[in-house]
Amino acid sequence: MKDISHWVLRASQDVRFEVVETTGLLDPQNPRLRQLPGGDETRAQRLTVLDEVVDDLFGSRIRDYFDSTSTPMSYMTVPAGDEQKTIENVLRIASRLNELGTERSGTPPIAVGGGVVQDVVGMAAALYRRGIPYVRVPTTLLGQIDGSVSAKNGVNFEGYRNRLGTFHPSPLTLIDRAFIATLPERQVRSGMGEVLKMALIKDPELFRLLEEFGPVLVQERLQDTGPLTHDRKPGHEVMHRAITGMAEELEKNLWEKNLLRIVDYGHTFSPVVEMRSLPVLYHGEAVAMGSLFCATLALNRQLLPQSDFDRIVNCIHSLGLRPTHEMFGDADLLKTAFADTVRHRGGAQHLALLTGIGSTVFVEDLTDKEIELASQMVGKL
Amino acid sequence: MKDISHWVLRASQDVRFEVVETTGLLDPQNPRLRQLPGGDETRAQRLTVLDEVVDDLFGSRIRDYFDSTSTPMSYMTVPAGDEQKTIENVLRIASRLNELGTERSGTPPIAVGGGVVQDVVGMAAALYRRGIPYVRVPTTLLGQIDGSVSAKNGVNFEGYRNRLGTFHPSPLTLIDRAFIATLPERQVRSGMGEVLKMALIKDPELFRLLEEFGPVLVQERLQDTGPLTHDRKPGHEVMHRAITGMAEELEKNLWEKNLLRIVDYGHTFSPVVEMRSLPVLYHGEAVAMGSLFCATLALNRQLLPQSDFDRIVNCIHSLGLRPTHEMFGDADLLKTAFADTVRHRGGAQHLALLTGIGSTVFVEDLTDKEIELASQMVGKL
Repeated sequence: MKDISHWVLRASQDVRFEVVETTGLLDPQNPRLRQLPGGDETRAQRLTVLDEVVDDLFGSRIRDYFDSTSTPMSYMTVPAGDEQKTIENVLRIASRLNELGTERSGTPPIAVGGGVVQDVVGMAAALYRRGIPYVRVPTTLLGQIDGSVSAKNGVNFEGYRNRLGTFHPSPLTLIDRAFIATLPERQVRSGMGEVLKMALIKDPELFRLLEEFGPVLVQERLQDTGPLTHDRKPGHEVMHRAITGMAEELEKNLWEKNLLRIVDYGHTFSPVVEMRSLPVLYHGEAVAMGSLFCATLALNRQLLPQSDFDRIVNCIHSLGLRPTHEMFGDADLLKTAFADTVRHRGGAQHLALLTGIGSTVFVEDLTDKEIELASQMVGKL
Repeated sequence: MKDISHWVLRASQDVRFEVVETTGLLDPQNPRLRQLPGGDETRAQRLTVLDEVVDDLFGSRIRDYFDSTSTPMSYMTVPAGDEQKTIENVLRIASRLNELGTERSGTPPIAVGGGVVQDVVGMAAALYRRGIPYVRVPTTLLGQIDGSVSAKNGVNFEGYRNRLGTFHPSPLTLIDRAFIATLPERQVRSGMGEVLKMALIKDPELFRLLEEFGPVLVQERLQDTGPLTHDRKPGHEVMHRAITGMAEELEKNLWEKNLLRIVDYGHTFSPVVEMRSLPVLYHGEAVAMGSLFCATLALNRQLLPQSDFDRIVNCIHSLGLRPTHEMFGDADLLKTAFADTVRHRGGAQHLALLTGIGSTVFVEDLTDKEIELASQMVGKL
């Protein structure tokens, strides 16, 4: 009973990925969507996956774009909606890639749509032949400012959000703010929930932009078209600051080896609420509520001044977001949600709380009593 | 129509993993199976996944091992056989991990068994919570010398081997040669097929060991128990040389960014034969046949001397392996197999051929005519 041989293997993987904000992405004159990483546009049939909503709105323009340059391209449509974030849809896409004889490189599929399409195509690309590159074209605000610089994909499983997935960064994400112009207002507001989170954890200037231009940003859908905004371009600024902030945080912790992640702010209690709420809450709506719930915890600990707390509440209202949901009044549910998040954080709380607008501290000693008190308070907002 | 913003993100991931050959792994006095990476043996219920065959042979000893130290452990049995390498089994394991509340670190599942169990547990660990560590205890010769230092997992999909999978190295692989003692002889011979491949591509000394001790190694199942081997320990030497060779090759190309891989030798034509042959061929059997087929291609190009070719044929016979299969007489099937492999190699042939025993060269210009000629020749072996 003794060790005979011992091998230690070490290896290092470098990844590099690009996010480009462009205009006129679907204009055949704009080559961006054709100039793909490692791609040879004429080599083989490729696959563009669209969600139903995007297909209705932009499907014919996308087909025209590739037809106009005779790029061999197949298309596949995935139903919209979070309940489509399933392993079955991942396998459907993988099956289609297999059918087309998609190779390990040079023929990356393209995902055009919201978070669900990005997630299922990303996961299919991660699994097919143990990983091929893919290209993302997020068409929602959330996808553009949050998903665009993420390396993650995932599907819901047995009632848990993103319980299965991988880290598989897309080498190229293409953003065109014009897509946002066609979104329903509620989706824009939901996206602003993630922008708000980014402002709260690290960017006071971004928060001031939201305070000053919040309703205009939502109304103009970040297009900077109105008379109120023509000398400031807050849509551009918000997009740029939010993506830059997210990129800074993710670049230093892409595989989440460090579980102290400020970008998880607002995502501690919200996942369970988001999965169980009926009528369905959008992700950014739940994140805004989760952000305010954690601001309440910080207020009660006297970490966050009352004046900052009030600014946050006002900002949430001005973005047309609801500050809370009746489920945040259910302390037992919140304790369950917290326990699951702690498990996901390797058994530690690692709970980011605000010490002001744009600054955070991690706490590891949150008590059930604090959850109960905050739960009572947000019920009255 | 112009680019507005451009972000380039770079990140680097370091991985480190260990392979330990030990003895008495299931002896409660040997702490190896309890001392897990990032593990706290008393923290939470963990999961050991066994294949049926291993459960029959070693299940009670494994349970005794953990019971004797009151380690909280759940068990799950997966049917044996390559047709079990499915996404459905991956999801069954993920579901069980979810049920147990397995965390992102500290509670790694353990896979005990052959390649199928290693693959499905590895893939479940790769997907669950976007990747958790796991521990491998390979019990077949193939698993010990080939899988042990691999970062890959995978399942068969729509008739293609390993069409879905990931790179997700296990931080710890534990090898005990005693498992080999219980294997059916055919499985030992199959494992020797991979050892032969490693010898052919880079280790002439390993090839000489196979020539000298081949039948004894198979008969003694690498245990070095017999009178013929007591002063040489060829079982130990073969295991050590094969793993060391594989480790050297994989460490420099873990994620297979470089598609010029000599370890793919013998794996170019064999996958299709392996998937379609009835009665079923074992992986190492198909690899030995594929190795000889490529040796024939090299012989015909006058890259490989006739004397080396003859030694290879003799060695294959002495290991009790068949040199070929009627499917290698089907040139059309081989061309189809080659085309699929070329797709998997990013559109390039990258075909390793032997220039001698222990040395290779890559060719990119193999013709259909050469495949046809070699196919006719191996039919007469």
